Amino acid sequence: MSETIEAEPRKRRRRADARRAATTGDTGAMTLAQQAPGQAKVMFEPARIVSDDELESLHLASLEVLETIGMDVMLPEARDYFARAGASIDGERVRIPAGLIMQALATVPSQFTFHARNPNKTLRIGGGWMAFGTVGSAPNSSSLERGRRPGNLEDYWDFLKLAQSFNCIDFISGYPVEPIDVHASVRHLVALKDMALMTDKPFHAYSLGLERIRDGIEIARIARGVSHEQLETEPSLFTIINTNSPLKMDVPMLQGVIEMARRNQIVCITPFTLAGAMAPVTVAGALVQQNAEALAGIALTQLVRPGAPVIYGGFTSNVDMKSGAPAFGTPEYMKAAMVGGQLARRYGIPYRTSNTCAANALDAQAAYESVFSLWGVTMGGGNLVMHGAGWMEGGLVASLEKFVLDCDLIQMVKSFLQPLDVTRDALGLEAMKEVGPGGHFFGCAHTMARYDSAFYAPMISDWRNFEQWQAAGSSHAGDKAQAITKQVLGTYQKPAIDLAVEEELEAFVARRTQEGGAPTDF
Amino acid sequence: MSETIEAEPRKRRRRADARRAATTGDTGAMTLAQQAPGQAKVMFEPARIVSDDELESLHLASLEVLETIGMDVMLPEARDYFARAGASIDGERVRIPAGLIMQALATVPSQFTFHARNPNKTLRIGGGWMAFGTVGSAPNSSSLERGRRPGNLEDYWDFLKLAQSFNCIDFISGYPVEPIDVHASVRHLVALKDMALMTDKPFHAYSLGLERIRDGIEIARIARGVSHEQLETEPSLFTIINTNSPLKMDVPMLQGVIEMARRNQIVCITPFTLAGAMAPVTVAGALVQQNAEALAGIALTQLVRPGAPVIYGGFTSNVDMKSGAPAFGTPEYMKAAMVGGQLARRYGIPYRTSNTCAANALDAQAAYESVFSLWGVTMGGGNLVMHGAGWMEGGLVASLEKFVLDCDLIQMVKSFLQPLDVTRDALGLEAMKEVGPGGHFFGCAHTMARYDSAFYAPMISDWRNFEQWQAAGSSHAGDKAQAITKQVLGTYQKPAIDLAVEEELEAFVARRTQEGGAPTDF
Repeated sequence: MSETIEAEPRKRRRRADARRAATTGDTGAMTLAQQAPGQAKVMFEPARIVSDDELESLHLASLEVLETIGMDVMLPEARDYFARAGASIDGERVRIPAGLIMQALATVPSQFTFHARNPNKTLRIGGGWMAFGTVGSAPNSSSLERGRRPGNLEDYWDFLKLAQSFNCIDFISGYPVEPIDVHASVRHLVALKDMALMTDKPFHAYSLGLERIRDGIEIARIARGVSHEQLETEPSLFTIINTNSPLKMDVPMLQGVIEMARRNQIVCITPFTLAGAMAPVTVAGALVQQNAEALAGIALTQLVRPGAPVIYGGFTSNVDMKSGAPAFGTPEYMKAAMVGGQLARRYGIPYRTSNTCAANALDAQAAYESVFSLWGVTMGGGNLVMHGAGWMEGGLVASLEKFVLDCDLIQMVKSFLQPLDVTRDALGLEAMKEVGPGGHFFGCAHTMARYDSAFYAPMISDWRNFEQWQAAGSSHAGDKAQAITKQVLGTYQKPAIDLAVEEELEAFVARRTQEGGAPTDF
Repeated sequence: MSETIEAEPRKRRRRADARRAATTGDTGAMTLAQQAPGQAKVMFEPARIVSDDELESLHLASLEVLETIGMDVMLPEARDYFARAGASIDGERVRIPAGLIMQALATVPSQFTFHARNPNKTLRIGGGWMAFGTVGSAPNSSSLERGRRPGNLEDYWDFLKLAQSFNCIDFISGYPVEPIDVHASVRHLVALKDMALMTDKPFHAYSLGLERIRDGIEIARIARGVSHEQLETEPSLFTIINTNSPLKMDVPMLQGVIEMARRNQIVCITPFTLAGAMAPVTVAGALVQQNAEALAGIALTQLVRPGAPVIYGGFTSNVDMKSGAPAFGTPEYMKAAMVGGQLARRYGIPYRTSNTCAANALDAQAAYESVFSLWGVTMGGGNLVMHGAGWMEGGLVASLEKFVLDCDLIQMVKSFLQPLDVTRDALGLEAMKEVGPGGHFFGCAHTMARYDSAFYAPMISDWRNFEQWQAAGSSHAGDKAQAITKQVLGTYQKPAIDLAVEEELEAFVARRTQEGGAPTDF
């Protein structure tokens, strides 16, 4: 355990970058002051809100679930993997001995590299590193200008532009919004090609059957310009597997797990365990089920290919028992996020969490649910933060303005995680001597040397006094987010790419489209 | 170090209370579902974001400041205390040896009881216990209905009504808003009498000279119906001492420190160290200065009366270096709140922090700055949380609706701090067996036995789906807060009090008013 926050290795470079970015912009957004790129690292010990004994109770209960109840595993090939390793098979039901799970977990890498086509944007996953992604998989999009509407390709592009433009966004979590105006048979081809061309950050492909995930892997490979062999040593794509909670995994997702693990690409097993709906009504019970399902999926990746990169996903929240509506950013969510982290660390597996909220508007609720989520995520030791920016209505909407607001929140979290400088000069004794009792520090040498970079400069927060603020129109945070959204979309620049790579991508997608894409009978 | 969240001793009672409160209301607000009363306790280890070595650097630098620069101590009597203990005096400047400080700290109690006139509302201060207070000392008040205006007695009463009605408010932080329509000579008499009569929770008196603090102590004594002797064994009043940063303490506050400590009442030393303005521009430098000033004040309390109850106050934040405006709920604020907690725990002194924000409106900014503050406060091990509800504009405004919104935030924090139940039954194995793979938990026995109290029920959050929400008028969190504010103000009930006590209070205030109150030449 380390008790300090440490700078990432690139710290010194980042400081210099921060000043440049603040004046020139580091992305397409030429006039927006934003943080310099670079992953955050949590160097203090994450919160431990249950004791080691209590954690062991959760762990043992999960193993008991897998051994006595088991899981319905719908793909024969997946059942075969479990059977060969010693599980008992009864129709689709697979009962998994504790020893099988623990043996499989022994080969999981605790940290690995997630390669982007732009090497500067390659990520470290695990080991205290955090990576923040976009909203993913929303069926609807919203903007203050255009309103709320079903997802479409135009809105999809807008989110890719924001994702590329904001330095604090480390990866693309999936389709920020589902472009449902593109036919389902070729949607993955169009959407992933655009993702690979309009951004140069690492990305995700859905496990919706064998064809789609194979196409996704091939698009990631072509975008990186590497051979099949090199791809197998350099994970360059990830997929989220949401088990069919409770205790079930369907055919398309199992095909995804097996294909991705076989190719040494990143699988993230995230049970969708809403306490009271698809999981027990107690947070502890939901965590036991989450852990059981996650361990089963993680074990499968290792049975397919020992050492394959895999992430422990936690998504436990609760439902409103009055209406059945999912709730996010709640006290229960925070607890689950933190204990999920304790479980993942117990197994030495990188941990995925999310920045969630259930709000319908960009109001105080949207903000407090998101920051409560980020609190759980950050203090809980989250490594991969899905839905980092833009998620609203419990995932039913991707919002452009919420995306921008969340980027400010993420930047604040990253700024909080930068280590406190306690070098002699930073302790300020000379400044206190210079100023003396009763003085002020506005003009002293210590201040003058640091004032332009001393503190985090927010994008959204309005710190004018009431009179100035009122005279300027009494704007709310949402108004500012809207203005920034327009500004960033207007100055987006497509990232550089090797022309041959772009042509190869286009040709691959054209060929696969001509072949009819992928089946739509899921 | 304890690694678990534990229930407070009253846990079982609280659970029963929670149901009753949810249906009948526990306060004046008869129809509002709110949490049952009871202090929160943090049983996990607070965050340690600097290492022990780094913490020691801050500590040693503070001692160096006190020894080499010293502080301007404006009251001769206070200088005499320091001189007798071995400090060097040079005019008003007092240079304090490290040994003096450390010896004085040795007698500080790490935990003590803060008595309310209603014994059920007596608080434990320190030892992991948290207590949340109202906004304090705002010059202006605001409500969505009446707008923003200078503080007055009518608005002051409204805040007292809210403070009394919400179970999550543990104490009154001072005048929530300054009733400037009451003449300054008697304002403390009127305001404190109303506080003692309209609420039955522990409260604060300002250290604005000897007369006022003596009147405050007498009002607290009469309200509790105890003798002078009993009052000296039962701390029943607290005062916040904001040092005149940098490194100065004026006469009225020093009189307050000495009088309160002499009578064994609670002194909280809170340097007002805004980095870049009244403290060095670095967070570490501001913390060194905060720590130096706090230690000097805390030492004085112990020189006056060894063992007197005292609280280490942290209020370090930063200013916007572009405008000089104070900023709150920032990454710098979070770091300072957490490291402040590490320092206070190093000395074994209860720790005071605050729920802050700089927003002008009840928008996303107000919410995210507040939750970032609460994150720093809670994970930083704050014991006394000043400005818990209603603080906006960096303290220039007390807002009725923000008060209610903050109560929801505080309730969420308290719900988060309730221990995870990991008893066998809570682990949910029977429920998972009953439901089985592919089922759902809505109607199972485990759910039916718990659904009405399983999760935190928010006051403000709107979890309806978009269509329902839109059909009902697309309300924002602020609208809901406004409706609850009206409801609670409309159903406020004055707490019971012994008639003789009320008469004695009235008589005391009448006599002191006739005497002319207190001087206004501060």
